[in-house]
Amino acid sequence: MTERIESNCPDSAPLLVVGSVAFDNVITPYGEKEHILGGAASYCSLAASYYTQVRMVGVIGNDFGDEHLDRLRSRGIDLEGVQKDDSGPTFFWKGRYHENFNRRDTLDIQLNVFEKFRPDLPDSYKDSNFVLLGNIHPALQMHVLDQLQGSSFVLADTIDLWIEIERKALLDLIKKVNLFVINDTEAEELTEEKNIILAGNKLREMGPETVIIKKGEHGAILFHEDGMFALPAYPVTELRDPTGAGDSFAGALIGRLASRNRSDFQAIKEAMVYATCTASLTVEAFGCDRLESAGVKVIKERSDTLHRLISVN
Amino acid sequence: MTERIESNCPDSAPLLVVGSVAFDNVITPYGEKEHILGGAASYCSLAASYYTQVRMVGVIGNDFGDEHLDRLRSRGIDLEGVQKDDSGPTFFWKGRYHENFNRRDTLDIQLNVFEKFRPDLPDSYKDSNFVLLGNIHPALQMHVLDQLQGSSFVLADTIDLWIEIERKALLDLIKKVNLFVINDTEAEELTEEKNIILAGNKLREMGPETVIIKKGEHGAILFHEDGMFALPAYPVTELRDPTGAGDSFAGALIGRLASRNRSDFQAIKEAMVYATCTASLTVEAFGCDRLESAGVKVIKERSDTLHRLISVN
Repeated sequence: MTERIESNCPDSAPLLVVGSVAFDNVITPYGEKEHILGGAASYCSLAASYYTQVRMVGVIGNDFGDEHLDRLRSRGIDLEGVQKDDSGPTFFWKGRYHENFNRRDTLDIQLNVFEKFRPDLPDSYKDSNFVLLGNIHPALQMHVLDQLQGSSFVLADTIDLWIEIERKALLDLIKKVNLFVINDTEAEELTEEKNIILAGNKLREMGPETVIIKKGEHGAILFHEDGMFALPAYPVTELRDPTGAGDSFAGALIGRLASRNRSDFQAIKEAMVYATCTASLTVEAFGCDRLESAGVKVIKERSDTLHRLISVN
Repeated sequence: MTERIESNCPDSAPLLVVGSVAFDNVITPYGEKEHILGGAASYCSLAASYYTQVRMVGVIGNDFGDEHLDRLRSRGIDLEGVQKDDSGPTFFWKGRYHENFNRRDTLDIQLNVFEKFRPDLPDSYKDSNFVLLGNIHPALQMHVLDQLQGSSFVLADTIDLWIEIERKALLDLIKKVNLFVINDTEAEELTEEKNIILAGNKLREMGPETVIIKKGEHGAILFHEDGMFALPAYPVTELRDPTGAGDSFAGALIGRLASRNRSDFQAIKEAMVYATCTASLTVEAFGCDRLESAGVKVIKERSDTLHRLISVN
């Protein structure tokens, strides 16, 4: 039985996660690691697995061994939607972080089997009421939405690449999502607005009813029709590898919402606290290691700490 | 009768403010203004005047007209400690802010009468229980402490200049202050620690029992023996001139503490909310204009807004 934050929420709904699965080589000021499990779908799914049942969709290549699938399975993640493509290796990314972790350079990228990936959903996934569209081409994100039956609460993430080369497809997509999550520099790029408050308001006018702008070490801001909410980052003192922090945030956020079967303002605020704490684990070690091993107790303790950190009274 | 946030706090204590008085020429992407009232003591005193009785110490030159003194007087500020030096003009600063307001260049600086300034306290100020040492040479800040009778709660502010050329004097000073307020880049410079949480802890080890690190648009973090507190900035959408924001924050912060005659963890957190809201006014217009004219009602409304912005429930 997979350990979850609240093991018996009667209303708990499963979560569909779609995104990339990758092997990463990561270089940071603290060292270098090769061939580590990565990709948005991996981080999102592992983070969400602390909260609810995850249905994962992605593609893996002929170099993806059972030991990696077992890591995901052991967190109770349903892998029926993970396609195995034996025609080539798994998506590969190599990057280097700079001294203060604020910038990173992509040193190598090989799409491999990800190049031909189409996120076709198994029939058993099509009734999902909570959906996380991790960062992939916006047309593929839209393809997922087209397969869903019934109404879903949809969170979409993106990266600067799609803003630059697929702006039209991205703008079409975000009209159809409920919660759009984006970082501060991407928000500025997409809205051409430097003030983060105005950028958040502009993004909501573009379609999504709710927007979260992530600011890395400075936390995140929620823009919702019922109001705004600003949350600082968890006070991490041992930053080791920021890869996957944004994906972990998104996964835990909607995982928590699915576990409570809620998507109102109050529930999103509460889920952001868990999302922030879950993402704080990811950055404390290379790859998924700390996220995967931390356990429910640590996440709950961090949630208590974060609540105290922001409490005036 | 000067309008204050709470007009009848029975325990209210007066606040001693020491710092520079200046005329500024400010250039921003929105325009340019010349010969506007500035300096740390002016901003600190005006901000604090919304909370308690202010005793101001500074020096003005032969170009400082009564109309400027009247602006301060009309906020009920006691000017007995403001020295008039007819041998030259008032301290002058000219600066230009860049596009995103994150950086500024000093284009001209003329110390004038400020060069020979010694902050000698009138006898009637020496019993002050709350003291704000605005940014001046750390040896002059120490000279103020030497004149105080009885125990005081002392807040000190500084700038990068003193970290660079008077590190020893600054380190001596902060051992004697209760609350040290510094911005993030200065904190990194003084502690040689990039991680802001570790920098805050290191600063406390250097002497001051309590430290606040200001992060501009990203808010501020309090480090106290009873815990940490992270507060986002007020969501300003009309940033016009950031000059004096830090001074306004410090002035309102200790002004609020003096008005309640408290300096415990809980009181400092509550005062940070008011300080953030008060500083948000300063940046919405050139110089002191908006800070001076906003009034108690607007500050209270912003305080309510900020409380809602950070409230999970």
